[in-house]
Amino acid sequence: MPQVLISEVGPRDGLQSVKATMPTEHKLRWIDALHAAGLREIEVASFVPARLLPQMADAAEVVRHAITLPGLVVMALVPNRKGAQAALDAGVHKLTMPVSASPAHSLANVRKTPTEMVEEVRAISELRRELAPQVRLEAGISTAFGCTLQGLVAEDDVIRLAVQCVEAGADDVGLSDTVGYANPAQVRRLFRRLRAEIGVHAGAAHMHNTRGLGIANCLAAFDEGVRTFDASLGGLGGCPYAPGASGNVVTEDLVFMFEAMGVSTGIDLDKLLAARAPLAAGLPGEPVYGMTAEAGLPKGFAPTTSTQQQA
Amino acid sequence: MPQVLISEVGPRDGLQSVKATMPTEHKLRWIDALHAAGLREIEVASFVPARLLPQMADAAEVVRHAITLPGLVVMALVPNRKGAQAALDAGVHKLTMPVSASPAHSLANVRKTPTEMVEEVRAISELRRELAPQVRLEAGISTAFGCTLQGLVAEDDVIRLAVQCVEAGADDVGLSDTVGYANPAQVRRLFRRLRAEIGVHAGAAHMHNTRGLGIANCLAAFDEGVRTFDASLGGLGGCPYAPGASGNVVTEDLVFMFEAMGVSTGIDLDKLLAARAPLAAGLPGEPVYGMTAEAGLPKGFAPTTSTQQQA
Repeated sequence: MPQVLISEVGPRDGLQSVKATMPTEHKLRWIDALHAAGLREIEVASFVPARLLPQMADAAEVVRHAITLPGLVVMALVPNRKGAQAALDAGVHKLTMPVSASPAHSLANVRKTPTEMVEEVRAISELRRELAPQVRLEAGISTAFGCTLQGLVAEDDVIRLAVQCVEAGADDVGLSDTVGYANPAQVRRLFRRLRAEIGVHAGAAHMHNTRGLGIANCLAAFDEGVRTFDASLGGLGGCPYAPGASGNVVTEDLVFMFEAMGVSTGIDLDKLLAARAPLAAGLPGEPVYGMTAEAGLPKGFAPTTSTQQQA
Repeated sequence: MPQVLISEVGPRDGLQSVKATMPTEHKLRWIDALHAAGLREIEVASFVPARLLPQMADAAEVVRHAITLPGLVVMALVPNRKGAQAALDAGVHKLTMPVSASPAHSLANVRKTPTEMVEEVRAISELRRELAPQVRLEAGISTAFGCTLQGLVAEDDVIRLAVQCVEAGADDVGLSDTVGYANPAQVRRLFRRLRAEIGVHAGAAHMHNTRGLGIANCLAAFDEGVRTFDASLGGLGGCPYAPGASGNVVTEDLVFMFEAMGVSTGIDLDKLLAARAPLAAGLPGEPVYGMTAEAGLPKGFAPTTSTQQQA
């Protein structure tokens, strides 16, 4: 069993943030490559109206392919009940909902207040219980570490919202640094409080590298016991409705850190680096980031997760 | 008093790694801007033969200017006794010597084995005692976390070399990730051992961001009690004699991390970002890195070190 779960968000978070639309065929090839590298949770799509996010118009088709991959937890973002219905119809294993701690960002992102979004969590939790009780429901608290619209976000607001999401039926509640404002001291403080308040429901760390601290913030979260980390291959992504949000943590660099530390991810680094090719092929001209990919693995590097272990 | 000391290495480590030579006048303006931002230790030059490193031919002139800046500790790299003599003549406050834990890198870098370099430390320590006993002597253990030539570097070799440097007269011994191989677990382990072995002589962390872990490694070192961090404005630098070495930790991002965490650096972030202008002006066309500079400071950001505190 890997010691940490890397949850790849590129096919949703990444692809919805770029102007171009990756053709479906390329998406499937990219997801196949991610799965082949050992990723076991991938956020593959967002179920939103195609007129708002044409990049996600093929969400159902992508999900229907992804669920055929053995051992993969297929996750989709849903902002509301209608999206959840469509995602469940397509057969997802896990729903994730963006619940922003900043009212300004919440209104810009989903046209609902944080309190209204908690009610959406409740409605979707009930829908899930009726239609597909085995499906997991995650709430990601956006702008948990600050907001480009509002500025500071009170830690009490974040924790209260997380508790409300659990009460409304969310299985996991993660914290997202949507705009790259977080620092390691804050990450430690907030995840410690989150764990104290909601225990086993405390979920993933979703960090951005906007100001260069993404990986350090993941380390800080790991130190506090977080074991699920969102990341995006090639650092693709951000939030189109949060000005200045850019730079998801680069999956390759994060996996390199954990494997180098002796913390197993279940991911084969060489195959993960190879998964950059279908990403680049599907989005010609789009910049793809990552320091490990550029520098290569260290001489004599021995990851905890080898190809043999995978086999 | 600042809680951490950021030791700026750009004018030496950075400038000797690029092809172009920054004109002396520009170096002085850049160092002035770094000092104005609150930096209180700057490695301003390397005393090596100008035919080997023409970028450093004006070392003495740069030192003579830098020592006029109030409160600044002026440091220079010296590979041997002759360089040390010249640096002391110019009036430096601190000497730093590269002592590589990898014999292959040591020979490539200074054409001496690690053991021979310890003897250089002893010779320079004695010279310093005769000529300028108030001058501080630092040994930086290069390739302490791995080497692109040798691969793995035994931790026992690193610690033994550090102890030998202290016995030879070094006041401080730091650990350098010359080629960007380090990971946070290794950083914690090695600095813990270093402190256990040489106590107050344990010195700076010199990290590279070659594989994206530079800032996380600084955080790991901070957690272990390290309070001096080398960094380079705009991430300039590397080592010309270590293939694949690139990307010093970016001063701006590191200062942002500490200030955001509430750890004072004594550095004014706005003025630090402004110090990128004279760097860029002196090295036209050279890429300058840094995420914080690109993204800007967070809305509502309140650093621990304000302009008023500086005044």
